[in-house]
Amino acid sequence: MGDAAVRLLEVGRGEPLPGELRRRVDLLHYVEKVKPIVEDVRRRGYEAVREYTLRFDGVDVEDPRVPREVLEEAYAALPERLRWALRVAASALRRFHYSTRPPSETWVPGARLRLLPVRRVGAYAPGGAHPYPSTVLHTVIPARAAGAGRVVVATPPRRGGGDVPVSGLMLAAAYVAGADMVYAVGGAQAVAALAYGAGPVERVDKVVGPGNPYVQAAKLLVSGDVGVDMVAGPTELAVVADESAEAEAVALDMLAEAEHGPLSVAALFTGSRRLAEEVAALLEKRAVGGLGMLYVVVAADTGEALRLADEMAAEHLVLYLGGELREEALRGDLAAGVVAAGVPPALLDYAYGPSHVLPTGGAARWRGGLCVYDFLRPIAYVDDSLVGRELLEASIVLAEAEGFGFHAESLRHRLRRLEESGEAGEEGGGRDGV
Amino acid sequence: MGDAAVRLLEVGRGEPLPGELRRRVDLLHYVEKVKPIVEDVRRRGYEAVREYTLRFDGVDVEDPRVPREVLEEAYAALPERLRWALRVAASALRRFHYSTRPPSETWVPGARLRLLPVRRVGAYAPGGAHPYPSTVLHTVIPARAAGAGRVVVATPPRRGGGDVPVSGLMLAAAYVAGADMVYAVGGAQAVAALAYGAGPVERVDKVVGPGNPYVQAAKLLVSGDVGVDMVAGPTELAVVADESAEAEAVALDMLAEAEHGPLSVAALFTGSRRLAEEVAALLEKRAVGGLGMLYVVVAADTGEALRLADEMAAEHLVLYLGGELREEALRGDLAAGVVAAGVPPALLDYAYGPSHVLPTGGAARWRGGLCVYDFLRPIAYVDDSLVGRELLEASIVLAEAEGFGFHAESLRHRLRRLEESGEAGEEGGGRDGV
Repeated sequence: MGDAAVRLLEVGRGEPLPGELRRRVDLLHYVEKVKPIVEDVRRRGYEAVREYTLRFDGVDVEDPRVPREVLEEAYAALPERLRWALRVAASALRRFHYSTRPPSETWVPGARLRLLPVRRVGAYAPGGAHPYPSTVLHTVIPARAAGAGRVVVATPPRRGGGDVPVSGLMLAAAYVAGADMVYAVGGAQAVAALAYGAGPVERVDKVVGPGNPYVQAAKLLVSGDVGVDMVAGPTELAVVADESAEAEAVALDMLAEAEHGPLSVAALFTGSRRLAEEVAALLEKRAVGGLGMLYVVVAADTGEALRLADEMAAEHLVLYLGGELREEALRGDLAAGVVAAGVPPALLDYAYGPSHVLPTGGAARWRGGLCVYDFLRPIAYVDDSLVGRELLEASIVLAEAEGFGFHAESLRHRLRRLEESGEAGEEGGGRDGV
Repeated sequence: MGDAAVRLLEVGRGEPLPGELRRRVDLLHYVEKVKPIVEDVRRRGYEAVREYTLRFDGVDVEDPRVPREVLEEAYAALPERLRWALRVAASALRRFHYSTRPPSETWVPGARLRLLPVRRVGAYAPGGAHPYPSTVLHTVIPARAAGAGRVVVATPPRRGGGDVPVSGLMLAAAYVAGADMVYAVGGAQAVAALAYGAGPVERVDKVVGPGNPYVQAAKLLVSGDVGVDMVAGPTELAVVADESAEAEAVALDMLAEAEHGPLSVAALFTGSRRLAEEVAALLEKRAVGGLGMLYVVVAADTGEALRLADEMAAEHLVLYLGGELREEALRGDLAAGVVAAGVPPALLDYAYGPSHVLPTGGAARWRGGLCVYDFLRPIAYVDDSLVGRELLEASIVLAEAEGFGFHAESLRHRLRRLEESGEAGEEGGGRDGV
């Protein structure tokens, strides 16, 4: 048995989700810490960025720009097996994201709702001990699919990287994903640089991607000045399984989730006590130190297991359910960043289609995973074809009720002009029409 | 001449937008102030809300709930002219928002991207000197159009309101819009109550709507724990007009915008010096104290005027342009919360179709106005039909490159199971297929 804690819980019918499965990260603490960094970068630009990079990453980066030619060289220098894997993953992501692009506009009387792409996107990809090329793919490709004009990647530089202080794998991923530029900048200073511009780092219109709590707190702080996707916390997996599930597959999925780090959470919800015990035993046997929390929750039945998983609103919800129950679950509305029937979450992390940048900490209650909609601005373009007596008069009544004299006057002026031209009744036919 | 400042500026070809037209509200200052309130409400619930309501609004509200029956009574008690105006405005909003609902899902190989409605929405409507029933319509109706299950309104209570400390007009607007409940709660404490729940105030999944900087800062602070629409600042209008425009209409639109308060901004961009001078003269004549800033900007030509307006990315962009220029502008990508050709902004504020809750301070670079998309969660539901050798093997390569052993093991386990069942090559045909 390993060091990791495996908790076996039982939840009766109608009882709420155990408190320990309601996770949230309190970012306010981190907001205090990153505020001076964000303000400093905003004031002093790249000079400040360079100082923080030296302090936090231990590298002095005079110019953080890695242009597309260098990305291509990095790709060419990679072993073919890695190049192939990046291409396969990128292709799976493109299939999903390009296929889910909505029509660029909807026409309605007097207006079009246009879905215009965000022009300049900055994708943050964490560095750390290992490079995360998959995150580059999973942020840049949805942005490109939406039609974003310029897509750049920011990632922390690493020590001893030579001329280009970013791993070749990251650069190659940026090449395959179609990024225009990589900046060797990380942390809160990267978010601030992308939000406000900082010398060689050009300002973007939206910053997306995962990162540690400092990065997330910085995103929260700048969110009035630049678009942000979401405040992402530690990764979470909920599995709902019935008797048809294979215990070993479930246990391996949970261990894969838990190896993201000690704050990650993997939970099995099941109505089957046999499955619960088998999975718990496998987890006990295989779990090692440094893993996240592992929960095995016995519910009254599969319906109850689904209810609890929905209440958790986890980042990933994986279903291992037999025929009818599976179909029913896929038709329902389940709160989760992604709902997957029979797909190992590790496959979703790399090469299935949807982005692995997903809402955590219950955020699936109000948003889904990163997708083309994150890079589209629904903007109403209206013409004056509906301007007529009825709408003008109703607006005058409301303007007066709200105490806005000039509003009412501007509307009366328009009404007068319409009457002069004989077009006032064109739409709606006045009050009697209601 | 009034007290308000009318500034006449001239911008040469290719020159940037004058700095004074780049507005932003620094919310960090307000974040400090509201943080204790948010934390207190989170900890002590409605007891804290009640204390802040007494302190800030001067009313002791034992139970803030105003249920739908009372909303209906308020509607019935309203003069018919106001009832009619609310109905007309609601009907115009419904026409736009129900017509712009996207299909509820997109099928792609192996997945569906489902647009599921946010279940519980809280709409904030400011109170202040005058009630703003229009804001109730402009927040609740898009939420209802998206299919939100429960939609509640929070608005500050007012002194001397008797049993129900909210104006009858606000309650009637909530009735017409189809809200389920009104809470007589305002300010940062209302945002915190909606985010975390507070006794009689039930927690929601997303908080939307305008409000003063305290309300906006509170939205920013809770944005990791509840969905928020945007951080809204003072209102802004950009008008781009050519010789075909009527100076009086333009001036009245600008005065209407400026009467929202001293922080609001209205700017005309035009290539016509004659129009600029006429509008400036009218503004000088009519402007009164307490208005916002009024700018008249002479650009080299209409194209340059549009470029400057795009750079401002104002909340409202109104075009008074002749035939060809107008059509060209409507086909382009203009950064603005709403783009309106020949529609008085006061009409957009009340009864044209799009919501008047729009991005300010340049936020139109990354989002549009409040619309059905704000209340839809695009969530990928995937099945295992694409699980095959190619995607699994590519993912194993990437998992190993990222140092995730259990990820690779869970994928290898699945590959083994597929091979046992003879289905491994079903999709993609393995590495040679790339």
